[in-house]
Amino acid sequence: MVVVMERGADEPQIEAVIERLDAYGFGVHRSTGAEHTVLGAIGVKPDFDVRHIKVLEGVKDVFRISSPYKLASREWHPDRSLVDVDGVTFGGDEIVVMAGPCSVESEEQIEAAAERVARAGAKILRGGAFKPRTSPYAFQGLGEEGLRMMRAAADRYGLKVVTEVMRPRQIPVVAKYAHTLQVGARNMQNFPLLQEIGKTKMPVLLKRGMSATINEWLQSAEYILAEDNPNVILCERGIRTFETATRNTLDLSAIPVVKKQSHLPIIADPSHGVGLRDKVTPMARASVAAGADGLMIETHPNPPEALSDGPQSLYLDEFDDLMEQVRRVAEAVGRTIPTGALAAV
Amino acid sequence: MVVVMERGADEPQIEAVIERLDAYGFGVHRSTGAEHTVLGAIGVKPDFDVRHIKVLEGVKDVFRISSPYKLASREWHPDRSLVDVDGVTFGGDEIVVMAGPCSVESEEQIEAAAERVARAGAKILRGGAFKPRTSPYAFQGLGEEGLRMMRAAADRYGLKVVTEVMRPRQIPVVAKYAHTLQVGARNMQNFPLLQEIGKTKMPVLLKRGMSATINEWLQSAEYILAEDNPNVILCERGIRTFETATRNTLDLSAIPVVKKQSHLPIIADPSHGVGLRDKVTPMARASVAAGADGLMIETHPNPPEALSDGPQSLYLDEFDDLMEQVRRVAEAVGRTIPTGALAAV
Amino acid sequence: MVVVMERGADEPQIEAVIERLDAYGFGVHRSTGAEHTVLGAIGVKPDFDVRHIKVLEGVKDVFRISSPYKLASREWHPDRSLVDVDGVTFGGDEIVVMAGPCSVESEEQIEAAAERVARAGAKILRGGAFKPRTSPYAFQGLGEEGLRMMRAAADRYGLKVVTEVMRPRQIPVVAKYAHTLQVGARNMQNFPLLQEIGKTKMPVLLKRGMSATINEWLQSAEYILAEDNPNVILCERGIRTFETATRNTLDLSAIPVVKKQSHLPIIADPSHGVGLRDKVTPMARASVAAGADGLMIETHPNPPEALSDGPQSLYLDEFDDLMEQVRRVAEAVGRTIPTGALAAV
Amino acid sequence: MVVVMERGADEPQIEAVIERLDAYGFGVHRSTGAEHTVLGAIGVKPDFDVRHIKVLEGVKDVFRISSPYKLASREWHPDRSLVDVDGVTFGGDEIVVMAGPCSVESEEQIEAAAERVARAGAKILRGGAFKPRTSPYAFQGLGEEGLRMMRAAADRYGLKVVTEVMRPRQIPVVAKYAHTLQVGARNMQNFPLLQEIGKTKMPVLLKRGMSATINEWLQSAEYILAEDNPNVILCERGIRTFETATRNTLDLSAIPVVKKQSHLPIIADPSHGVGLRDKVTPMARASVAAGADGLMIETHPNPPEALSDGPQSLYLDEFDDLMEQVRRVAEAVGRTIPTGALAAV
Repeated sequence: MVVVMERGADEPQIEAVIERLDAYGFGVHRSTGAEHTVLGAIGVKPDFDVRHIKVLEGVKDVFRISSPYKLASREWHPDRSLVDVDGVTFGGDEIVVMAGPCSVESEEQIEAAAERVARAGAKILRGGAFKPRTSPYAFQGLGEEGLRMMRAAADRYGLKVVTEVMRPRQIPVVAKYAHTLQVGARNMQNFPLLQEIGKTKMPVLLKRGMSATINEWLQSAEYILAEDNPNVILCERGIRTFETATRNTLDLSAIPVVKKQSHLPIIADPSHGVGLRDKVTPMARASVAAGADGLMIETHPNPPEALSDGPQSLYLDEFDDLMEQVRRVAEAVGRTIPTGALAAV
Repeated sequence: MVVVMERGADEPQIEAVIERLDAYGFGVHRSTGAEHTVLGAIGVKPDFDVRHIKVLEGVKDVFRISSPYKLASREWHPDRSLVDVDGVTFGGDEIVVMAGPCSVESEEQIEAAAERVARAGAKILRGGAFKPRTSPYAFQGLGEEGLRMMRAAADRYGLKVVTEVMRPRQIPVVAKYAHTLQVGARNMQNFPLLQEIGKTKMPVLLKRGMSATINEWLQSAEYILAEDNPNVILCERGIRTFETATRNTLDLSAIPVVKKQSHLPIIADPSHGVGLRDKVTPMARASVAAGADGLMIETHPNPPEALSDGPQSLYLDEFDDLMEQVRRVAEAVGRTIPTGALAAV
Repeated sequence: MVVVMERGADEPQIEAVIERLDAYGFGVHRSTGAEHTVLGAIGVKPDFDVRHIKVLEGVKDVFRISSPYKLASREWHPDRSLVDVDGVTFGGDEIVVMAGPCSVESEEQIEAAAERVARAGAKILRGGAFKPRTSPYAFQGLGEEGLRMMRAAADRYGLKVVTEVMRPRQIPVVAKYAHTLQVGARNMQNFPLLQEIGKTKMPVLLKRGMSATINEWLQSAEYILAEDNPNVILCERGIRTFETATRNTLDLSAIPVVKKQSHLPIIADPSHGVGLRDKVTPMARASVAAGADGLMIETHPNPPEALSDGPQSLYLDEFDDLMEQVRRVAEAVGRTIPTGALAAV
Repeated sequence: MVVVMERGADEPQIEAVIERLDAYGFGVHRSTGAEHTVLGAIGVKPDFDVRHIKVLEGVKDVFRISSPYKLASREWHPDRSLVDVDGVTFGGDEIVVMAGPCSVESEEQIEAAAERVARAGAKILRGGAFKPRTSPYAFQGLGEEGLRMMRAAADRYGLKVVTEVMRPRQIPVVAKYAHTLQVGARNMQNFPLLQEIGKTKMPVLLKRGMSATINEWLQSAEYILAEDNPNVILCERGIRTFETATRNTLDLSAIPVVKKQSHLPIIADPSHGVGLRDKVTPMARASVAAGADGLMIETHPNPPEALSDGPQSLYLDEFDDLMEQVRRVAEAVGRTIPTGALAAV
């Protein structure tokens, strides 16, 4: 921690700060610059609240030196991590596509979606069974019945399953059917949920909160990693800004930033990022071009009748087209998106 | 719902939209303006996702007419609600002050805080026993032991207790000690938590999420109200903006806005709003002047040693001073903050 | 400047940074902590772009120590400044109210406004003659004719005049009629305008840009101060955030922040801050309670017919009421708003 | 305009609104829904301030139907516009790259940059001669001398010139040397500047303001178009959000949004969007993948010695590499970036 004293700070103020740092257990190194006295506080206390010093008399500014997270940081883990989801690898050359409807609605619906996304080259089936909805009057998901349908459909087409968990109590039932547990944007700082999910050691898809800085997002990843669960995949899904033309603002620069600060794989969810069907494909292309390790895409056999997020869901034909487009971009940036296992059928 | 067609929309496009509205169960009223055809969709579907229509060919814009919430709306409940916390009333002439440390840390600490805040005129003791912390390495609260200490201290000084619940499972234990359950900003859209808290019928302090619009906040209140729990108190605590000089940006204009849109009482938490001790008192004064029905203030017997949020906690003497200042402002706006029950002792 | 090296930075990387700092003319002090090597760069270069160092290999973070502004800083000018507008003082015990219509529209209109705001206790008449409008098709102001009308009305009622200048070329004509030159939010970083206005040595009302940090705002003040013009009054008028219930989000915490960082007086403009008439009075009260040195209020004899910003303009009777309310709040915080000079007539 | 009355609005309130609409010159169509009376206001008044109606008693909401801009809208101009810069076309299949240093600093510097960017395939040389700087103490540009140097270098390598104009008075001198006038982000709502630039009929590169909505940006374009200057190229360069890991948040979803709402070409400036050299190339690739019609890239022969924005400027070798990468992405999305005219030399 570095403490910068105000230009006019007097000796008693400086000494009071030194004393306080000492009381907090820091060693102190004092240096006198042309205008400012600067105090270096020596000692590693990642959780120390620097505002303790900032509010003292005569203090101009305080800067933290150590990251508030370690396990998620590249400083401590320089090599990129690969996360394995039952044979599907995130973080390698291959870009992994997760696709499917917002909500599981019926056997026919999830079956139709699963077949087509597998055929187009997706590796993981997405779909919600427990849905966080802004309004209490909205469709809240089919629960375990939905999970069962989704897993059956996924198994039929060689897909893995990712789905959201909203509360600790749902973990056992979701874990029974899913290969990856998703933490939604609204739960990024639901710390009990993060801890309980961490304990499962299962792969976790951690979405960025709508107003979370990258730093806070990595601290939420740290909650999971700290439970000895290294299988965290980050997912950029748009942040809240003043612009209302799109549902959120997809922050694609988060991708190169995260890749520098962390070793964890990162994917993008352009469907939630923009919220309107006709912007999903261009932003999926852009995500891959920016370096995403995967994509999460909403697609539905019949979007106008979808029980949730239909307007941002692609028609299945549009999804085929998206896959072709992103595959070309992937190749242009030296990566691959394999064609579907069923494509030759 | 009102649908505005693009200037150049042709007849087949218009008819396709009408057909779709019809399929969704709306009656349709068509009117042709100078430049735009406008379709009125008649029927009340508060949960209908207007983007379903927005993505259709030839549609320029779609506007929702009914509020997505009803129970929280003044349209359906024109009189202001009073919320009673075991004899302490929110929403009346009296401005209710909740005060205490960020976290309960020890019997001595909470005792000292309780005595002084009661003496200064606070009616409710605040303090965290289950703490949501950004970092997994930070102090996470004393749990039930902290609750017990807090309730004992509150009882001794005639105070009520408000404290945060982070997950459904904690509700029974917290309800045993608290008079009001607090939902923190990070949990404003933790819908399972809102529902379970709603079922208790206990008074709830619902903090605004860091990036929540007022509209979304009222929908979260609706989750609680929809469980037949009318005892919701809203709390503005600062939103996330680009400005970093303060921890958050306290959005005091939310107070008059909420008072127009909703019948629920609303209080302000300037401690979290600004995050630095020396800005708390001016913003507490401003909150009262803007029309807040209450204040939530962090104060601690020894802020430099506080285990959480010490830098934004007032010294107990500063809290006395704050109370005198806000009392004068309350009178200037035609309201009251009584002096402490112990003041005469 | 303090440079923190990454945990794994090797000796050649550290040396390369030292060499670069040396080349930029800094003295370097190296210290080795438990995890990080920290380099103190000694030398005052307020304009140095710290990203030069941040992009070097092995660098984790760089912190600036000196403020990027000096003349606006309390570090160099600890006493609060008073700004005199032809006998009206900003920054003292008295809270100065500026009021009037958004635009000057006619002799009758400005005359009616001037009489009533003077009677109610305002000291300065506001009104636009050159109007920055988002749409090219909107009313653009009466120009010099409007200035003449406004000054005549102001003189009749003992008021001073504040009005906006949009481009350097308008300065001479505006300076002929106004006592204070206003820089609008959209021009806060119109640097040629700031410089030319600085040269006039006239009092300047510098509005905060819609997305300007407090730090950038004070740098814009520095542009004016650097022209040897100390007469800068800052005006908080709302920042852009995600919330759309109000036109902007009035950031009242900027008031205590500015008062700590700068010696310049600061006022608030709740009319632009909220954009809707019925929220102006509560936010005016809150501004005074937060410590504002003045208020700028839009009021119009006939708001529904106003050529600009009618919806946020108070009726003149409402303005009378606002003045009574803010006067009571001013007294509650130990300040004064005198009754109107004509009040006794 | 559509006016939605509150659920409890009574007949006198409804009639008062109708009367007011009538006074404003609108025809009124009234319809009574299940819960709300809705008034359709018929008549085209693109500049009408809908808040006039919103503040009336009993009004719940007001929606604007016509766009506040016309000339910039695809509704009135369905075909995409091509903008010609002296033989270089924006908006066609070819993606146009503008590149060069932030500021022109010397003959050698601009010469070196021009040669290399031409060789790599850029068509337009960028460089600032009049620089808007946040701090008054920063390098402010070489002025006309810089323009002369830049034009000479551009001519030698077959490049066109784009450079910023900060105030109306600079237009004649800049127009003497430049092929395209740039309006910087801070001047997006400098309306006198937009009007004067419009009058030149020269191509204009209009950067998006840091906190401007897409709607406001298109209204600023309208200012130029309204002067009978159709040659507007839009440039996304990042918006201000709460995230501080990057200088701004490059809003690439603005590209598909603008392409739907407007016929004007749009390019991206990833250098300002991210502000750090190592993120520029991934975001340039993403911009092209999202559909940008061009790129603006900062590159410098010696970034560490650059007088402005060195840290976000690419080394010339890095620029070569960027061009190869974006060329591959361009081909993947069915567009082209030609190799440099000098490439064969």
